[in-house]
Amino acid sequence: MKLPNIADIHAAAARINGRVRVTPVLTSSAIDAASGASIWFKCENLQHMGAFKFRGASNAVWALADDAAARGVLTHSSGNHGAALGLAARERGIPAHIVVPENAPAIKIANMRASDAHLHFCAPTLAAREHAAAQVQVHTGSILIHPFTHLEVIAGQGTAVLELLAAEPRLEAILVPVGGGGLLAGTAIATHAHNPGITVFAAEPEGAADAFRAMASGQLEQHPIADTICDGLRAGIGEINFQIMRREAVQVLIASDAETATAMRMIWDRLKLIVEPSAAVCLAVMLRHAEVFRGRRVGVILSGGNVDLDALPWR
Amino acid sequence: MKLPNIADIHAAAARINGRVRVTPVLTSSAIDAASGASIWFKCENLQHMGAFKFRGASNAVWALADDAAARGVLTHSSGNHGAALGLAARERGIPAHIVVPENAPAIKIANMRASDAHLHFCAPTLAAREHAAAQVQVHTGSILIHPFTHLEVIAGQGTAVLELLAAEPRLEAILVPVGGGGLLAGTAIATHAHNPGITVFAAEPEGAADAFRAMASGQLEQHPIADTICDGLRAGIGEINFQIMRREAVQVLIASDAETATAMRMIWDRLKLIVEPSAAVCLAVMLRHAEVFRGRRVGVILSGGNVDLDALPWR
Repeated sequence: MKLPNIADIHAAAARINGRVRVTPVLTSSAIDAASGASIWFKCENLQHMGAFKFRGASNAVWALADDAAARGVLTHSSGNHGAALGLAARERGIPAHIVVPENAPAIKIANMRASDAHLHFCAPTLAAREHAAAQVQVHTGSILIHPFTHLEVIAGQGTAVLELLAAEPRLEAILVPVGGGGLLAGTAIATHAHNPGITVFAAEPEGAADAFRAMASGQLEQHPIADTICDGLRAGIGEINFQIMRREAVQVLIASDAETATAMRMIWDRLKLIVEPSAAVCLAVMLRHAEVFRGRRVGVILSGGNVDLDALPWR
Repeated sequence: MKLPNIADIHAAAARINGRVRVTPVLTSSAIDAASGASIWFKCENLQHMGAFKFRGASNAVWALADDAAARGVLTHSSGNHGAALGLAARERGIPAHIVVPENAPAIKIANMRASDAHLHFCAPTLAAREHAAAQVQVHTGSILIHPFTHLEVIAGQGTAVLELLAAEPRLEAILVPVGGGGLLAGTAIATHAHNPGITVFAAEPEGAADAFRAMASGQLEQHPIADTICDGLRAGIGEINFQIMRREAVQVLIASDAETATAMRMIWDRLKLIVEPSAAVCLAVMLRHAEVFRGRRVGVILSGGNVDLDALPWR
């Protein structure tokens, strides 16, 4: 299987230029003081659909040839990728089908519905999901856009850090959350093309720490049912994403849900930004492992802001 | 008394350049659909200290001659202006004294404390405030920087809309909240220097609608004790601010606290931004008076984001 490379990411950046937002990069002296580092936050919570996922989805949708695109696209998603693919498909004028686990957060289901995608609900298991997806493909001929192993999805996710490094080229470390690993893989490739000396870190919740264990053991690990408030990070790492992580020597650090809730509150309070737990886990990791980041210039991708305002983790 | 003019605002922009953030301008297709208008949001909640107030405070502090500055600055404030003045004074290395009503919101008191300003608490009445301020001046010789009638404060506040109009020059209407009227006065002067054909609107909470009544009667109105969740808009309009409002033909529109809470929730949900009620009142006014704004290109200044995350108005 071809792995994405920096040329794919530059092609993605050109393809989605004008379709995705160049999101702001923000700083906070209070958070710098709390962490001991200097942090540049790339605000992908302010991206269309409230998450970086719109980058990869847009790139995948617009990379399709016209005849393929006309058959529509299909994915399975607990939320942000599904909504992003739905919106990208609507902008291209093609159908989108999304297989959704019944336990997906209400706000993410609402976002998917708002995109006019066709939703197909299934039980929250791998087998049920694959069965449902196969059924949809048989009936529609639509093209599967996997949420995190699709080459053009990974390439699209890698465009966020290109913008971050353009805004602040002297970063010494980059930190992104890891679930399936699409953002992480794209980020690592783009970052090391810019400067191989930058360390790429991944933040992972303790309750879904398969990437952490896989990097320690050197092989993909069984992924038990995830137990974390980071609903965007419950997937196990994809195989090609794991290959890229190893090649790029990504460092995985973990945080507890309580630490993530505290970090999320700090971002809301100090940056005035709404971020979801799956984004806040990065700051949680920085506060837990302060010695790793102290005195360094760190770029953090705030991956998304789709959170239910009636169910905040610190309440 | 000399009224500020566009030259003062341009001088302010030059003086505070590099000291204040050029905040992002964001849009939301969902909010556009809800309002029927096309809205560009100028995100002053992402300004240093979480409010536009840092513009006026910085301009006033850095406009002082060295010998005057050395005596320190003084103000009275329920929050954002005090914290902004404290931070600006710290950056210049001079003392700041703030007379604070005892009922100011905890988050705003915390922000003032964080700026290293000297806080002087008083009862929440005009008489107690003036007495306390006079005492501080006698003892310190510090220079009063009034929160909304000081010329350099008004000029500094006017710099936000310069940036907004640079980002989107074709705006047909500008909407800002009104309390004491500093932001409104600076905005009206700068907007009409850019294009006299742009209508400037002010949004005011029903429970503190003295500017609305004053524009209707043509004279300053008694300002009873304010009753609104918009804690930044409880002050009565300043006299020179009222003069400028009349000259610039500002249109004042009002909204209820319930409407403001709904609008605030919409901004949190859709823009992923934390704004305080005093900022959300602008969208509340747009939704209440949709016929006024339908089909128009509207610039809205989101004035601040300093809100207690444990006391949200929709809970």
